[in-house]
Amino acid sequence: MRIGFVGTGTMGRPMAANLLKKGHTVVGFDVVPAALEAAAKLGVERAGSAAEAAKGADLVVTMLPSSPHVEAAYLGARGVLEGVGQGRLCVDMSTIDPSVSRRVAEAARARGARFVDAPVSGGVPRAEEATLAIMVGGEARDVEEARPVLACMGANVIHVGPVGSGEVAKICNNLIAGVAAVAISEAFRIAEGFGVDPGTLTEVIAKSSGATFIMEHMHPVPGQVAKAPASRDYAPGFMTDLMAKDLGLAVSAARDLRVPVFVAPAAQQVLRLASSHGLGRKDFSVVYQFLKPSGKDAPV
Amino acid sequence: MRIGFVGTGTMGRPMAANLLKKGHTVVGFDVVPAALEAAAKLGVERAGSAAEAAKGADLVVTMLPSSPHVEAAYLGARGVLEGVGQGRLCVDMSTIDPSVSRRVAEAARARGARFVDAPVSGGVPRAEEATLAIMVGGEARDVEEARPVLACMGANVIHVGPVGSGEVAKICNNLIAGVAAVAISEAFRIAEGFGVDPGTLTEVIAKSSGATFIMEHMHPVPGQVAKAPASRDYAPGFMTDLMAKDLGLAVSAARDLRVPVFVAPAAQQVLRLASSHGLGRKDFSVVYQFLKPSGKDAPV
Amino acid sequence: MRIGFVGTGTMGRPMAANLLKKGHTVVGFDVVPAALEAAAKLGVERAGSAAEAAKGADLVVTMLPSSPHVEAAYLGARGVLEGVGQGRLCVDMSTIDPSVSRRVAEAARARGARFVDAPVSGGVPRAEEATLAIMVGGEARDVEEARPVLACMGANVIHVGPVGSGEVAKICNNLIAGVAAVAISEAFRIAEGFGVDPGTLTEVIAKSSGATFIMEHMHPVPGQVAKAPASRDYAPGFMTDLMAKDLGLAVSAARDLRVPVFVAPAAQQVLRLASSHGLGRKDFSVVYQFLKPSGKDAPV
Amino acid sequence: MRIGFVGTGTMGRPMAANLLKKGHTVVGFDVVPAALEAAAKLGVERAGSAAEAAKGADLVVTMLPSSPHVEAAYLGARGVLEGVGQGRLCVDMSTIDPSVSRRVAEAARARGARFVDAPVSGGVPRAEEATLAIMVGGEARDVEEARPVLACMGANVIHVGPVGSGEVAKICNNLIAGVAAVAISEAFRIAEGFGVDPGTLTEVIAKSSGATFIMEHMHPVPGQVAKAPASRDYAPGFMTDLMAKDLGLAVSAARDLRVPVFVAPAAQQVLRLASSHGLGRKDFSVVYQFLKPSGKDAPV
Repeated sequence: MRIGFVGTGTMGRPMAANLLKKGHTVVGFDVVPAALEAAAKLGVERAGSAAEAAKGADLVVTMLPSSPHVEAAYLGARGVLEGVGQGRLCVDMSTIDPSVSRRVAEAARARGARFVDAPVSGGVPRAEEATLAIMVGGEARDVEEARPVLACMGANVIHVGPVGSGEVAKICNNLIAGVAAVAISEAFRIAEGFGVDPGTLTEVIAKSSGATFIMEHMHPVPGQVAKAPASRDYAPGFMTDLMAKDLGLAVSAARDLRVPVFVAPAAQQVLRLASSHGLGRKDFSVVYQFLKPSGKDAPV
Repeated sequence: MRIGFVGTGTMGRPMAANLLKKGHTVVGFDVVPAALEAAAKLGVERAGSAAEAAKGADLVVTMLPSSPHVEAAYLGARGVLEGVGQGRLCVDMSTIDPSVSRRVAEAARARGARFVDAPVSGGVPRAEEATLAIMVGGEARDVEEARPVLACMGANVIHVGPVGSGEVAKICNNLIAGVAAVAISEAFRIAEGFGVDPGTLTEVIAKSSGATFIMEHMHPVPGQVAKAPASRDYAPGFMTDLMAKDLGLAVSAARDLRVPVFVAPAAQQVLRLASSHGLGRKDFSVVYQFLKPSGKDAPV
Repeated sequence: MRIGFVGTGTMGRPMAANLLKKGHTVVGFDVVPAALEAAAKLGVERAGSAAEAAKGADLVVTMLPSSPHVEAAYLGARGVLEGVGQGRLCVDMSTIDPSVSRRVAEAARARGARFVDAPVSGGVPRAEEATLAIMVGGEARDVEEARPVLACMGANVIHVGPVGSGEVAKICNNLIAGVAAVAISEAFRIAEGFGVDPGTLTEVIAKSSGATFIMEHMHPVPGQVAKAPASRDYAPGFMTDLMAKDLGLAVSAARDLRVPVFVAPAAQQVLRLASSHGLGRKDFSVVYQFLKPSGKDAPV
Repeated sequence: MRIGFVGTGTMGRPMAANLLKKGHTVVGFDVVPAALEAAAKLGVERAGSAAEAAKGADLVVTMLPSSPHVEAAYLGARGVLEGVGQGRLCVDMSTIDPSVSRRVAEAARARGARFVDAPVSGGVPRAEEATLAIMVGGEARDVEEARPVLACMGANVIHVGPVGSGEVAKICNNLIAGVAAVAISEAFRIAEGFGVDPGTLTEVIAKSSGATFIMEHMHPVPGQVAKAPASRDYAPGFMTDLMAKDLGLAVSAARDLRVPVFVAPAAQQVLRLASSHGLGRKDFSVVYQFLKPSGKDAPV
């Protein structure tokens, strides 16, 4: 299959590589020339614009960092919708505002094309292993059409609901995961202050109502879970900056929907602040390190 | 064994009943006459004060609503420490400030008695079934001495560490559980706003990084988990007021320890506010209901 | 002068009326027919679209509820930019995202027109009295051109800086005012709990570092300031919904700018929640009422 | 007059010095020997305990860093209440939990002494100039008895209400001031991100609903107010650690009173975190510096 691939950055490159491995032809584009260059070395054919990458493609994949990038890549001058063939399917794998997914889907429909959103979970390591989890929003037949292509890049492809639902599932999941990481960090800092052993506490909580996937697999305290980022100096994993972005998408969606939210913005802002203070490219569980107590001479 | 039991309220009564069932003699006291009366009907012998309940007891159990109650019951006039025999063990099963546990333990030691903290998890239903989870802080030999008595009331008795550690484990676990319930509620309110099916979302999150014990067992959205309080009009379970109290203990401990915390106070305060607005005696997962969106005519 | 006026709703109507009083011709449009009808009764000429209202106008004024409305009114089909004459000035008096102001300004420039943002402060009462405070962002000569028209509607016209600056000033001011109202409410609820007289406390704070315009003029406690909304059952003044919107704009701008913010989202969300619970159309100082303590039987 | 003075630390020393200047005899005590030594050099007579300082004094003044210190100094072994003469007045000038003030007052009464709380505002500079603001809680005749002594140390002595009311006024005022400083910092960081001139914004806000004492006198942005701490590298003024403590007292009081609070804990925790990251001894307006944006390469 001939696949147009827009966005061959850090995440997009290994994903495109996996499409090549499965025998697809990939025509790529990226606004950053070096990113396109690196993909070209792996066998991706270079296009001069998103429109050009989309032209003649059986299916278009986009993997971009944020909502405005996606809008520009589809709706802008020399964008995907200028090049994509009649009736073709566009698969946006970026993590963005679900309302933008819907807006782009409508624009695609108006232009005679189809659109599904298919954000991924797992980061670069699982992109390289082609074991990403992929949450898809769109018409059932479109999702089925995309499935074999998605299966080249990920291990777990779930159809969540209509267009935008993939994004909704992703940001709702990450809202909970991000908040949990902060909550666990707060709890273990408190326990530490009382001199309670973190290993024992981990065992107790693992069997109680506070058990979470995050503590089991991405424990924020170094040394508690061998394979967790915390145990390798918070090498990501999933970067603080990306978690702050996803929490921001959730909070912003809540605002548009008039849903009152409290723990999501609290977690979002503390991760944002951790980023301001130099921890943006560490795994988001580094928030544990950021939430250190102040000195014992401070009055209480 | 002759057991002095101080605090025969809603939680204490079924616990005392389980001690009676296992053949122990229970001498009870409660500052609320009706609470003592109700316990007496089950076979508890009435004492006129905490000191009197403690006098001659082989072991003293206390089950009280808050830190000041525990301080008063042990250190106050006609309190436990006035009556307890030389070398006897006191087991406080209240959920309180770990610093207070330590202070009372010291006072007990000064008076020739011993003390462990052993807060419970599971609420009235599991108190009745004698299947409470019990987290214990104290000297190993004291904990072993208490274990057979605790085993009459609970199914899972864990020794966490030195005095106060039971409380620390309890409030740290509940910090995470309480925050998770709010996070899940926020996530599902957002998904709802986008029209995403909560059942599908639950399945997706259950297999992803947002998976939590709370969503699996106490899902805040009605109809998602049959046995969850949400599916029976938020009948507790664990009351909003109690979760607000436990989060308050965690936040207060963080303050004393100079640990900065963000999601814990956010969750604490939204539960406190839910209580102000009439939801204090519902299960704490009712926060989902409380966080309803405002009307669509509100400007954004 | 012939003025095109788009958005003749609750705020726009009295503003248009003041333009009429000063002898201007006003050609109005509103997507809500009833709103246009009401304006027509005051002497506004009806146009069939924003484009038509703008056509032939010496200057265009827009007064709309939110960013998407402004984008649609200018950039949409039959929008202002389709009708406005070459070189004419557009004055947007809506409170919206400053980035949207800039985007619309650029589009206007591309179309040969000019644009200033000029959000107002003071609500319906001061709109009626023509005493609004107006914060303007734009080129100096554009602002000077707009000034006589703005002076028909407001008493205090300030040029803040380039396009978007009027909005920035408005949302930054309201961030502080909104947060202050919540802080004052929290402080007085605490004082109340201790039985301290609110009048005395008001006097003390008025002379101390906690003094604020909000406490002096819009005291959230009923009976403290005679002319404050709190003293007339929280009749606005400035509605909770509008303050929640402005705080939302500030928090959203902070997100786009990667600025970490903490008290702004806390205030935003508690006002949003107050709106969910029926207080959206009361003055925002009603947050005092919303933050009532829970019952004394709740454990602490 | 012979005055017992307990707590001759950084704040207490200049206050004691002012009592000496007005001709009083001061008998001092401090648990830190160096603090007592320094006071002795100014003419304070050394006592060996709080009890000894209180013995024979016409009036006792205490100036201590926190609630537990005050409890220990009054109620502990060799404490004030062991030494103070029948019917004498104790004046506690520390900033502490109002409930502790009330508890100590009761203990004093039981011991035949009298007690007022009289926390101060203004920091070391105004302590040295004897221009502290002093908020007093107690019986009218006790306050009048204390007034001439207080007038040696401060310029503005206000009787707020019964015992504890001085503390309540202090922490309520500081709740608002602390939150305002964070809100102003957030607003100016946002404005900065948009490139709006802070001087112009300050002028606009000063005339609008966002006006506050804090912005006028302690503007957190360097260079805006010449005499503000921000303009001298955040030299205090009032330290971050002390503001975090006062906000903590307010939040803790809210918890005890079951008052839901949102912006106070948000401000408390961000100041606590600023302290963890090395800013505890700077003026609290340094929060502006702490809330810096993260890098422009971070995804949004």
